[in-house]
Amino acid sequence: MARLRDVVAEAAQAGAALLVTPELSATGYQLGRGRTRQVAEPADGPLRDAVSALAQASGVSIVYGWPEAADGVLYNSVHLIDATGRVAAHYRKTHLYGEFDAGTFAAGSDPVVQARIGGRTVGLVICYDVEFPELVRAHALAGTELLAVPTALTRPWEFVARTLVPARAFESQLFIAYVNWTDTEPDGYCGLSRLVGPDGLPLAEAAGGEAVLIGRLDPAALAAARRATPYLLDRRPDLYGALTDRQAPASRESS
Amino acid sequence: MARLRDVVAEAAQAGAALLVTPELSATGYQLGRGRTRQVAEPADGPLRDAVSALAQASGVSIVYGWPEAADGVLYNSVHLIDATGRVAAHYRKTHLYGEFDAGTFAAGSDPVVQARIGGRTVGLVICYDVEFPELVRAHALAGTELLAVPTALTRPWEFVARTLVPARAFESQLFIAYVNWTDTEPDGYCGLSRLVGPDGLPLAEAAGGEAVLIGRLDPAALAAARRATPYLLDRRPDLYGALTDRQAPASRESS
Repeated sequence: MARLRDVVAEAAQAGAALLVTPELSATGYQLGRGRTRQVAEPADGPLRDAVSALAQASGVSIVYGWPEAADGVLYNSVHLIDATGRVAAHYRKTHLYGEFDAGTFAAGSDPVVQARIGGRTVGLVICYDVEFPELVRAHALAGTELLAVPTALTRPWEFVARTLVPARAFESQLFIAYVNWTDTEPDGYCGLSRLVGPDGLPLAEAAGGEAVLIGRLDPAALAAARRATPYLLDRRPDLYGALTDRQAPASRESS
Repeated sequence: MARLRDVVAEAAQAGAALLVTPELSATGYQLGRGRTRQVAEPADGPLRDAVSALAQASGVSIVYGWPEAADGVLYNSVHLIDATGRVAAHYRKTHLYGEFDAGTFAAGSDPVVQARIGGRTVGLVICYDVEFPELVRAHALAGTELLAVPTALTRPWEFVARTLVPARAFESQLFIAYVNWTDTEPDGYCGLSRLVGPDGLPLAEAAGGEAVLIGRLDPAALAAARRATPYLLDRRPDLYGALTDRQAPASRESS
């Protein structure tokens, strides 16, 4: 909370309307299963109250992550708290990654969660979620203009930050704020947080170390990208039936 | 045909089993609508016979494109002719790009067309098609291991070759042969043909000029990528219903 307070102050100073922080930012990601259970809180717990007060005091909307205790299980969740201190959006990670994630959390069942912030439609997904083009496309089709992606990306998966995230922004023609942890371990978090525009180009990007990145979303860039290449209109939804088929893919057997 | 003969000889010399050529490679892409109609042929026309003879003589399977005349309309089509000279696969472009494409051709209705070549499953899409993650995903789910993509990509869309194509290979965990025209006009074809592996990294890539690229597909790389990150198994098809919805996207109104 002390670190968040500092960062919120820096964001407010820079005139930012929205601050996005990494996956499980309020507690840390690699706590282990037992400790994660201990620090878990319901969606209306003291963490929410503290961040809500901070948002209200600073005038900055805040996206933060925490292990949510609900219905007797844990979710890997994020809140978007608006500048009035209200929970504007609440998302539970739908694509769980690897042993820790899948062994600790239940998967969310609501793919597209959005809020209006500063006149723009902001959507929320978490880390591994953004690696699935289907989910980002669903956001674009639902009108998301900025996709906020708290993440915990480790080495050697820099390709995701450097190539996959720009491709997502370009192909679904929205802004993406991809916000990662950072450390110096060889297999640790690789930083590389970035704000990418709908042309796939970075508006702001971090190197390996800690940083508060500031970027401005220009709605004209969104319209220009969609005019230049009308991906969303040129789709052929009549041909995409295989994407919603719940059978195991053929590749399961062949690989 | 003279140029194709030279290139096939070069491919055979290098021990290649399959040669992929650009979009509408047999006739050229920007002929204009009238000229395209003049050079169009049915799928069993003299072009097919000539390429078939070349494949049989060289022992190299060949992917070539031509304007197909069928059912009173034109399609932007490709054939995969195997080394016995047989048509192993026939695909009609399903996502038409811009004025020339959409004004000249009817769109195909079969999204996933495949053939077995050299013991691997080869899929066919054309140019703009590959920019839609839905279509490449459908190929991966159907077991495509190598996606052959004849294309006609112009400047300033180098991002597609450099970033979007590697992202496709990585996210859907297949090999992609992206094969473009090249010229020196400022807004002309940008080359940048490449063979990309399922880890998103290039196995072979061309600069701006003409080239015959040779690459070897290692099935172990495919299995390794799918083991490292099981994207195809971690999908949530139950959450992707919006992708097959034929209604206009919300963004149509907002942009």
